[in-house]
Amino acid sequence: IHPSSQNIKVAADAAIFTVRNGQLMVLLIQMKKKPHAGKWALPGGLIGDRETAERAARRILSAQTGVADAYLEQLATFDDPKRDPLGRVVSVAYFALIPSESVILRTTEKYADVRWWPMKKLPGLAYDHQRIAEAALRRLRAKLEYTNVAWSLLPPEFTLNRLQGIYETILGRALDKRNFRKKVLALKLLVPTGRVRKGEAHRPAALYRFRRTELTFLDIL
Amino acid sequence: IHPSSQNIKVAADAAIFTVRNGQLMVLLIQMKKKPHAGKWALPGGLIGDRETAERAARRILSAQTGVADAYLEQLATFDDPKRDPLGRVVSVAYFALIPSESVILRTTEKYADVRWWPMKKLPGLAYDHQRIAEAALRRLRAKLEYTNVAWSLLPPEFTLNRLQGIYETILGRALDKRNFRKKVLALKLLVPTGRVRKGEAHRPAALYRFRRTELTFLDIL
Repeated sequence: IHPSSQNIKVAADAAIFTVRNGQLMVLLIQMKKKPHAGKWALPGGLIGDRETAERAARRILSAQTGVADAYLEQLATFDDPKRDPLGRVVSVAYFALIPSESVILRTTEKYADVRWWPMKKLPGLAYDHQRIAEAALRRLRAKLEYTNVAWSLLPPEFTLNRLQGIYETILGRALDKRNFRKKVLALKLLVPTGRVRKGEAHRPAALYRFRRTELTFLDIL
Repeated sequence: IHPSSQNIKVAADAAIFTVRNGQLMVLLIQMKKKPHAGKWALPGGLIGDRETAERAARRILSAQTGVADAYLEQLATFDDPKRDPLGRVVSVAYFALIPSESVILRTTEKYADVRWWPMKKLPGLAYDHQRIAEAALRRLRAKLEYTNVAWSLLPPEFTLNRLQGIYETILGRALDKRNFRKKVLALKLLVPTGRVRKGEAHRPAALYRFRRTELTFLDIL
Protein backbone atom coordinates (compact mmCIF):
# COMPACT_ATOMS: atom_id res chain seq x y z
CA ILE A 1 0.00 0.00 0.00
CA HIS A 2 1.44 3.31 -1.01
CA PRO A 3 1.42 5.75 1.94
CA SER A 4 -0.10 8.62 0.01
CA SER A 5 -3.15 6.54 -0.89
CA GLN A 6 -4.13 5.60 2.67
CA ASN A 7 -7.02 7.64 4.04
CA ILE A 8 -7.51 6.88 7.75
CA LYS A 9 -7.94 9.22 10.73
CA VAL A 10 -6.81 8.48 14.30
CA ALA A 11 -8.83 9.30 17.42
CA ALA A 12 -8.51 8.67 21.16
CA ASP A 13 -11.49 7.66 23.31
CA ALA A 14 -11.61 7.25 27.09
CA ALA A 15 -13.66 4.87 29.25
CA ILE A 16 -13.49 6.59 32.63
CA PHE A 17 -14.69 4.53 35.60
CA THR A 18 -15.46 5.14 39.22
CA VAL A 19 -17.25 3.12 41.92
CA ARG A 20 -20.00 5.04 43.67
CA ASN A 21 -22.79 3.78 45.96
CA GLY A 22 -21.95 0.18 45.16
CA GLN A 23 -22.17 0.72 41.41
CA LEU A 24 -19.54 0.77 38.71
CA MET A 25 -20.10 4.01 36.82
CA VAL A 26 -18.75 5.11 33.46
CA LEU A 27 -18.51 8.70 32.30
CA LEU A 28 -20.54 9.52 29.19
CA ILE A 29 -20.98 12.67 27.21
CA GLN A 30 -24.06 13.63 25.20
CA MET A 31 -23.22 14.62 21.66
CA LYS A 32 -24.36 17.79 19.92
CA LYS A 33 -23.43 17.16 16.31
CA LYS A 34 -24.93 15.04 13.57
CA PRO A 35 -25.16 12.20 12.83
CA HIS A 36 -25.18 11.39 16.56
CA ALA A 37 -26.84 14.49 18.08
CA GLY A 38 -28.50 13.61 21.41
CA LYS A 39 -26.71 10.27 21.68
CA TRP A 40 -24.42 9.33 24.54
CA ALA A 41 -20.82 8.29 23.96
CA LEU A 42 -17.45 7.97 25.62
CA PRO A 43 -15.55 11.27 25.46
CA GLY A 44 -12.96 11.37 22.69
CA GLY A 45 -11.79 13.00 19.51
CA LEU A 46 -9.12 13.09 16.82
CA ILE A 47 -5.55 13.37 18.05
CA GLY A 48 -3.24 16.15 16.95
CA ASP A 49 -0.49 15.51 14.39
CA ARG A 50 2.13 15.97 17.11
CA GLU A 51 0.05 14.67 20.02
CA THR A 52 0.20 11.11 21.32
CA ALA A 53 -3.08 9.29 21.87
CA GLU A 54 -2.24 9.04 25.58
CA ARG A 55 -1.79 12.77 25.86
CA ALA A 56 -5.11 13.24 24.08
CA ALA A 57 -6.76 10.82 26.53
CA ARG A 58 -5.32 12.74 29.52
CA ARG A 59 -6.52 15.98 27.99
CA ILE A 60 -10.03 14.53 27.69
CA LEU A 61 -9.95 13.10 31.23
CA SER A 62 -8.82 16.38 32.70
CA ALA A 63 -11.36 18.42 30.73
CA GLN A 64 -14.30 16.27 31.86
CA THR A 65 -13.38 15.42 35.44
CA GLY A 66 -10.80 17.95 36.59
CA VAL A 67 -8.59 15.00 37.53
CA ALA A 68 -5.19 15.05 35.85
CA ASP A 69 -3.30 12.25 37.57
CA ALA A 70 -5.81 9.38 37.52
CA TYR A 71 -4.81 5.84 36.64
CA LEU A 72 -4.86 5.62 32.85
CA GLU A 73 -3.83 2.81 30.54
CA GLN A 74 -4.19 2.05 26.90
CA LEU A 75 -7.00 -0.46 26.43
CA ALA A 76 -6.93 -1.41 22.76
CA THR A 77 -7.34 0.05 19.31
CA PHE A 78 -10.72 -0.31 17.62
CA ASP A 79 -10.55 -0.20 13.87
CA ASP A 80 -13.60 -1.71 12.26
CA PRO A 81 -13.70 0.12 8.90
CA LYS A 82 -17.41 0.84 9.43
CA ARG A 83 -17.26 2.07 13.05
CA ASP A 84 -17.73 5.70 12.04
CA PRO A 85 -20.34 6.52 9.39
CA LEU A 86 -18.43 9.64 8.27
CA GLY A 87 -15.24 7.83 7.23
CA ARG A 88 -12.52 5.53 8.47
CA VAL A 89 -11.45 6.52 11.99
CA VAL A 90 -9.24 4.24 14.07
CA SER A 91 -9.80 4.77 17.80
CA VAL A 92 -7.03 4.20 20.34
CA ALA A 93 -9.11 3.59 23.47
CA TYR A 94 -7.94 4.19 27.04
CA PHE A 95 -9.43 3.30 30.34
CA ALA A 96 -9.11 5.41 33.45
CA LEU A 97 -9.98 4.82 37.10
CA ILE A 98 -10.71 7.52 39.65
CA PRO A 99 -11.87 7.47 43.28
CA SER A 100 -15.41 8.83 43.44
CA GLU A 101 -14.32 11.33 46.11
CA SER A 102 -12.16 13.31 43.74
CA VAL A 103 -14.44 14.03 40.81
CA ILE A 104 -16.35 17.11 39.75
CA LEU A 105 -17.91 16.60 36.33
CA ARG A 106 -17.59 19.43 33.88
CA THR A 107 -19.66 20.06 30.83
CA THR A 108 -17.85 21.83 28.04
CA GLU A 109 -19.07 23.75 24.99
CA LYS A 110 -18.37 20.67 22.93
CA TYR A 111 -21.06 18.49 24.53
CA ALA A 112 -24.73 18.83 25.49
CA ASP A 113 -24.20 17.06 28.82
CA VAL A 114 -21.80 14.90 30.80
CA ARG A 115 -22.86 12.31 33.41
CA TRP A 116 -21.95 9.14 35.27
CA TRP A 117 -23.97 6.16 34.04
CA PRO A 118 -24.15 2.78 35.78
CA MET A 119 -22.24 0.30 33.63
CA LYS A 120 -25.19 -2.08 34.08
CA LYS A 121 -27.70 0.38 32.60
CA LEU A 122 -25.99 2.19 29.78
CA PRO A 123 -28.10 4.06 27.26
CA GLY A 124 -27.57 3.12 23.60
CA LEU A 125 -24.09 4.41 22.76
CA ALA A 126 -22.84 6.00 19.56
CA TYR A 127 -20.23 4.34 17.32
CA ASP A 128 -18.82 1.08 18.76
CA HIS A 129 -18.60 2.60 22.23
CA GLN A 130 -20.68 -0.17 23.79
CA ARG A 131 -17.99 -2.62 22.63
CA ILE A 132 -15.23 -0.34 23.95
CA ALA A 133 -16.95 0.00 27.34
CA GLU A 134 -17.39 -3.78 27.58
CA ALA A 135 -13.76 -4.40 26.64
CA ALA A 136 -12.72 -1.89 29.29
CA LEU A 137 -14.81 -3.73 31.88
CA ARG A 138 -13.20 -7.06 30.96
CA ARG A 139 -9.75 -5.50 31.27
CA LEU A 140 -10.64 -3.90 34.58
CA ARG A 141 -11.89 -7.24 35.94
CA ALA A 142 -8.71 -9.02 34.86
CA LYS A 143 -6.48 -6.27 36.24
CA LEU A 144 -8.36 -6.36 39.52
CA GLU A 145 -7.58 -10.06 39.93
CA TYR A 146 -3.93 -9.97 38.83
CA THR A 147 -2.70 -6.57 39.98
CA ASN A 148 -2.97 -3.98 42.75
CA VAL A 149 -4.97 -1.62 40.52
CA ALA A 150 -7.80 -1.29 43.09
CA TRP A 151 -5.68 1.37 44.81
CA SER A 152 -6.69 3.80 42.07
CA LEU A 153 -10.38 3.58 43.00
CA LEU A 154 -9.86 4.14 46.72
CA PRO A 155 -8.80 6.93 49.03
CA PRO A 156 -5.31 6.47 50.55
CA GLU A 157 -6.71 4.64 53.63
CA PHE A 158 -9.63 2.23 53.63
CA THR A 159 -11.13 -0.73 55.47
CA LEU A 160 -11.06 -4.30 54.15
CA ASN A 161 -14.85 -4.06 53.88
CA ARG A 162 -14.58 -1.15 51.49
CA LEU A 163 -11.92 -2.94 49.44
CA GLN A 164 -14.11 -6.03 49.22
CA GLY A 165 -17.01 -3.83 48.13
CA ILE A 166 -14.93 -2.50 45.22
CA TYR A 167 -14.05 -6.05 44.15
CA GLU A 168 -17.63 -7.27 44.44
CA THR A 169 -19.04 -4.32 42.53
CA ILE A 170 -16.62 -4.70 39.64
CA LEU A 171 -16.54 -8.50 39.47
CA GLY A 172 -20.33 -8.53 39.78
CA ARG A 173 -20.46 -11.31 42.36
CA ALA A 174 -20.36 -11.74 46.14
CA LEU A 175 -17.06 -12.89 47.63
CA ASP A 176 -16.74 -14.89 50.82
CA LYS A 177 -15.53 -12.45 53.45
CA ARG A 178 -13.08 -14.71 55.29
CA ASN A 179 -11.65 -16.13 52.11
CA PHE A 180 -11.26 -12.68 50.53
CA ARG A 181 -9.39 -11.35 53.57
CA LYS A 182 -7.16 -14.39 53.73
CA LYS A 183 -6.20 -14.18 50.04
CA VAL A 184 -5.77 -10.41 49.93
CA LEU A 185 -3.59 -10.38 53.04
CA ALA A 186 -1.56 -13.38 51.77
CA LEU A 187 -0.79 -11.45 48.57
CA LYS A 188 0.94 -8.79 50.70
CA LEU A 189 -0.61 -5.96 48.69
CA LEU A 190 -1.69 -4.09 51.79
CA VAL A 191 -0.05 -2.51 54.79
CA PRO A 192 -1.99 -1.88 58.03
CA THR A 193 -1.84 1.79 58.94
CA GLY A 194 -2.28 1.08 62.65
CA ARG A 195 -5.35 3.34 62.62
CA VAL A 196 -9.01 2.36 62.82
CA ARG A 197 -12.13 3.83 61.33
CA LYS A 198 -14.61 4.56 64.08
CA GLY A 199 -18.03 4.09 62.57
CA GLU A 200 -21.24 4.83 64.38
CA ALA A 201 -23.11 1.58 64.04
CA HIS A 202 -20.00 -0.53 63.59
CA ARG A 203 -17.15 -1.86 65.62
CA PRO A 204 -13.93 0.04 64.88
CA ALA A 205 -12.40 -1.39 61.67
CA ALA A 206 -8.68 -1.45 60.86
CA LEU A 207 -7.52 0.91 58.11
CA TYR A 208 -5.13 -0.31 55.42
CA ARG A 209 -3.22 1.31 52.59
CA PHE A 210 -1.72 -0.22 49.46
CA ARG A 211 1.96 -1.08 49.74
CA ARG A 212 2.49 0.28 46.23
CA THR A 213 0.49 2.81 44.26
CA GLU A 214 1.89 1.99 40.87
CA LEU A 215 0.77 -0.97 38.81
CA THR A 216 2.23 -4.21 40.19
CA PHE A 217 1.41 -7.71 39.00
CA LEU A 218 0.82 -10.41 41.59
CA ASP A 219 3.17 -13.35 41.90
CA ILE A 220 1.18 -16.45 41.07
CA LEU A 221 3.82 -19.03 40.20
CA ILE B 1 -8.96 19.29 15.22
CA HIS B 2 -10.61 19.35 11.85
CA PRO B 3 -10.52 15.88 10.25
CA SER B 4 -9.19 17.04 6.92
CA SER B 5 -6.13 18.58 8.54
CA GLN B 6 -4.91 15.43 10.30
CA ASN B 7 -2.03 13.71 8.52
CA ILE B 8 -1.32 10.34 10.16
CA LYS B 9 -0.84 6.88 8.63
CA VAL B 10 -1.74 3.58 10.31
CA ALA B 11 0.41 0.44 10.19
CA ALA B 12 0.30 -3.03 11.76
CA ASP B 13 3.44 -4.72 13.11
CA ALA B 14 3.77 -8.27 14.45
CA ALA B 15 6.02 -9.67 17.18
CA ILE B 16 5.95 -13.39 16.39
CA PHE B 17 7.41 -15.69 19.06
CA THR B 18 8.34 -19.31 19.33
CA VAL B 19 10.33 -21.34 21.87
CA ARG B 20 13.10 -23.41 20.30
CA ASN B 21 16.05 -25.18 21.96
CA GLY B 22 15.33 -23.54 25.27
CA GLN B 23 15.32 -20.03 23.82
CA LEU B 24 12.54 -17.55 23.23
CA MET B 25 12.88 -16.53 19.59
CA VAL B 26 11.31 -13.61 17.74
CA LEU B 27 10.88 -13.40 13.99
CA LEU B 28 12.70 -10.51 12.32
CA ILE B 29 12.91 -9.38 8.74
CA GLN B 30 15.84 -7.56 7.17
CA MET B 31 14.79 -4.43 5.36
CA LYS B 32 15.68 -3.48 1.81
CA LYS B 33 14.59 0.12 1.57
CA LYS B 34 16.04 3.38 2.83
CA PRO B 35 16.35 4.81 5.40
CA HIS B 36 16.59 1.42 7.12
CA ALA B 37 18.21 -0.77 4.41
CA GLY B 38 20.07 -3.70 6.00
CA LYS B 39 18.43 -3.20 9.39
CA TRP B 40 16.34 -5.82 11.14
CA ALA B 41 12.76 -5.14 12.19
CA LEU B 42 9.48 -6.80 13.08
CA PRO B 43 7.46 -7.55 9.94
CA GLY B 44 4.73 -5.00 9.29
CA GLY B 45 3.30 -2.39 6.98
CA LEU B 46 0.50 0.06 6.36
CA ILE B 47 -3.00 -1.33 6.57
CA GLY B 48 -5.49 -1.06 3.73
CA ASP B 49 -8.32 1.46 3.84
CA ARG B 50 -10.82 -1.38 4.23
CA GLU B 51 -8.54 -3.78 6.09
CA THR B 52 -8.48 -4.15 9.89
CA ALA B 53 -5.10 -4.09 11.61
CA GLU B 54 -5.74 -7.65 12.82
CA ARG B 55 -6.34 -8.88 9.31
CA ALA B 56 -3.13 -7.14 8.23
CA ALA B 57 -1.24 -8.83 11.10
CA ARG B 58 -2.60 -12.26 10.06
CA ARG B 59 -1.61 -11.55 6.47
CA ILE B 60 1.95 -10.74 7.63
CA LEU B 61 2.11 -13.81 9.89
CA SER B 62 0.93 -16.11 7.16
CA ALA B 63 3.28 -14.60 4.55
CA GLN B 64 6.37 -15.03 6.75
CA THR B 65 5.67 -18.32 8.52
CA GLY B 66 3.06 -20.19 6.50
CA VAL B 67 1.01 -20.44 9.72
CA ALA B 68 -2.46 -18.97 9.39
CA ASP B 69 -4.15 -20.03 12.64
CA ALA B 70 -1.54 -19.13 15.28
CA TYR B 71 -2.46 -17.43 18.53
CA LEU B 72 -2.60 -13.70 17.80
CA GLU B 73 -3.63 -10.82 19.99
CA GLN B 74 -3.44 -7.08 19.81
CA LEU B 75 -0.57 -5.88 21.98
CA ALA B 76 -0.80 -2.09 21.97
CA THR B 77 -0.62 0.88 19.67
CA PHE B 78 2.68 2.73 19.44
CA ASP B 79 2.33 6.32 18.39
CA ASP B 80 5.36 8.39 19.29
CA PRO B 81 5.18 11.19 16.69
CA LYS B 82 8.89 10.63 15.90
CA ARG B 83 8.88 6.83 15.66
CA ASP B 84 9.15 6.91 11.86
CA PRO B 85 11.57 9.37 10.25
CA LEU B 86 9.50 9.59 7.07
CA GLY B 87 6.32 10.91 8.70
CA ARG B 88 3.75 10.16 11.40
CA VAL B 89 2.85 6.49 11.37
CA VAL B 90 0.85 4.96 14.23
CA SER B 91 1.56 1.25 14.62
CA VAL B 92 -1.04 -1.17 15.94
CA ALA B 93 1.22 -3.95 17.22
CA TYR B 94 0.22 -7.61 17.58
CA PHE B 95 1.92 -10.51 19.20
CA ALA B 96 1.69 -14.07 17.94
CA LEU B 97 2.77 -17.40 19.39
CA ILE B 98 3.52 -20.53 17.36
CA PRO B 99 4.87 -23.98 18.25
CA SER B 100 8.37 -24.32 16.79
CA GLU B 101 7.35 -27.59 15.10
CA SER B 102 4.97 -25.90 12.70
CA VAL B 103 7.07 -23.14 11.16
CA ILE B 104 8.80 -22.81 7.82
CA LEU B 105 10.18 -19.31 7.39
CA ARG B 106 9.62 -17.67 4.04
CA THR B 107 11.51 -14.78 2.56
CA THR B 108 9.48 -12.61 0.25
CA GLU B 109 10.46 -10.11 -2.43
CA LYS B 110 9.76 -7.37 0.07
CA TYR B 111 12.62 -8.24 2.44
CA ALA B 112 16.33 -9.11 2.16
CA ASP B 113 16.05 -11.91 4.74
CA VAL B 114 13.84 -13.38 7.46
CA ARG B 115 15.14 -15.20 10.56
CA TRP B 116 14.44 -16.24 14.13
CA TRP B 117 16.50 -14.23 16.60
CA PRO B 118 16.91 -15.04 20.29
CA MET B 119 14.98 -12.43 22.26
CA LYS B 120 18.03 -12.12 24.52
CA LYS B 121 20.38 -11.22 21.65
CA LEU B 122 18.45 -9.01 19.28
CA PRO B 123 20.34 -6.96 16.72
CA GLY B 124 19.67 -3.19 16.75
CA LEU B 125 16.10 -2.87 15.48
CA ALA B 126 14.62 -0.23 13.19
CA TYR B 127 11.98 2.25 14.37
CA ASP B 128 10.76 1.61 17.95
CA HIS B 129 10.66 -2.13 17.36
CA GLN B 130 12.92 -2.86 20.33
CA ARG B 131 10.28 -1.23 22.54
CA ILE B 132 7.50 -3.18 20.82
CA ALA B 133 9.39 -6.47 21.25
CA GLU B 134 9.99 -5.73 24.94
CA ALA B 135 6.34 -4.81 25.50
CA ALA B 136 5.34 -8.07 23.78
CA LEU B 137 7.64 -10.01 26.09
CA ARG B 138 6.10 -8.35 29.16
CA ARG B 139 2.60 -9.18 27.90
CA LEU B 140 3.62 -12.75 27.15
CA ARG B 141 5.07 -13.18 30.66
CA ALA B 142 1.90 -11.81 32.27
CA LYS B 143 -0.35 -13.94 30.06
CA LEU B 144 1.70 -17.01 30.88
CA GLU B 145 1.07 -16.51 34.59
CA TYR B 146 -2.62 -15.60 34.42
CA THR B 147 -3.92 -17.63 31.48
CA ASN B 148 -3.61 -20.96 29.65
CA VAL B 149 -1.82 -19.31 26.70
CA ALA B 150 1.14 -21.74 26.87
CA TRP B 151 -0.99 -24.18 24.85
CA SER B 152 -0.21 -22.09 21.75
CA LEU B 153 3.54 -22.76 22.02
CA LEU B 154 3.20 -26.53 22.44
CA PRO B 155 2.15 -29.52 20.36
CA PRO B 156 -1.23 -31.02 21.35
CA GLU B 157 0.39 -33.47 23.82
CA PHE B 158 3.40 -32.74 26.00
CA THR B 159 5.10 -33.70 29.24
CA LEU B 160 5.09 -31.55 32.38
CA ASN B 161 8.84 -31.18 31.90
CA ARG B 162 8.34 -29.63 28.49
CA LEU B 163 5.65 -27.29 29.85
CA GLN B 164 7.94 -26.22 32.68
CA GLY B 165 10.70 -25.59 30.14
CA ILE B 166 8.41 -23.22 28.23
CA TYR B 167 7.60 -21.32 31.43
CA GLU B 168 11.24 -21.12 32.53
CA THR B 169 12.44 -19.98 29.12
CA ILE B 170 9.88 -17.19 28.89
CA LEU B 171 9.94 -16.07 32.51
CA GLY B 172 13.74 -16.19 32.43
CA ARG B 173 14.11 -17.99 35.76
CA ALA B 174 14.22 -21.51 37.12
CA LEU B 175 11.05 -22.82 38.78
CA ASP B 176 10.96 -25.42 41.53
CA LYS B 177 9.80 -28.63 39.88
CA ARG B 178 7.54 -29.95 42.67
CA ASN B 179 6.01 -26.56 43.29
CA PHE B 180 5.41 -25.93 39.58
CA ARG B 181 3.66 -29.27 39.14
CA LYS B 182 1.55 -28.77 42.22
CA LYS B 183 0.40 -25.29 41.15
CA VAL B 184 -0.18 -26.16 37.50
CA LEU B 185 -2.20 -29.24 38.36
CA ALA B 186 -4.19 -27.36 41.04
CA LEU B 187 -5.18 -24.77 38.41
CA LYS B 188 -6.88 -27.58 36.45
CA LEU B 189 -5.55 -26.28 33.14
CA LEU B 190 -4.37 -29.70 32.05
CA VAL B 191 -5.90 -33.08 31.36
CA PRO B 192 -3.84 -36.29 31.45
CA THR B 193 -4.09 -38.10 28.12
CA GLY B 194 -3.42 -41.50 29.70
CA ARG B 195 -0.45 -41.88 27.38
CA VAL B 196 3.26 -41.68 28.17
CA ARG B 197 6.25 -40.49 26.25
CA LYS B 198 8.83 -43.25 26.13
CA GLY B 199 12.18 -41.49 26.00
CA GLU B 200 15.47 -43.30 25.61
CA ALA B 201 17.44 -42.05 28.57
CA HIS B 202 14.36 -41.21 30.64
CA ARG B 203 11.67 -42.97 32.55
CA PRO B 204 8.36 -42.86 30.69
CA ALA B 205 6.72 -39.48 31.34
CA ALA B 206 2.97 -38.84 31.40
CA LEU B 207 1.59 -36.83 28.50
CA TYR B 208 -0.88 -34.03 29.11
CA ARG B 209 -3.00 -31.78 26.97
CA PHE B 210 -4.63 -28.42 27.74
CA ARG B 211 -8.25 -28.63 28.81
CA ARG B 212 -9.02 -25.61 26.66
CA THR B 213 -7.23 -24.23 23.60
CA GLU B 214 -8.78 -20.82 23.64
CA LEU B 215 -7.66 -18.04 25.93
CA THR B 216 -8.92 -18.62 29.48
CA PHE B 217 -8.04 -16.56 32.53
CA LEU B 218 -7.21 -18.36 35.74
CA ASP B 219 -9.43 -18.00 38.78
CA ILE B 220 -7.39 -16.33 41.46
CA LEU B 221 -9.95 -14.95 43.87
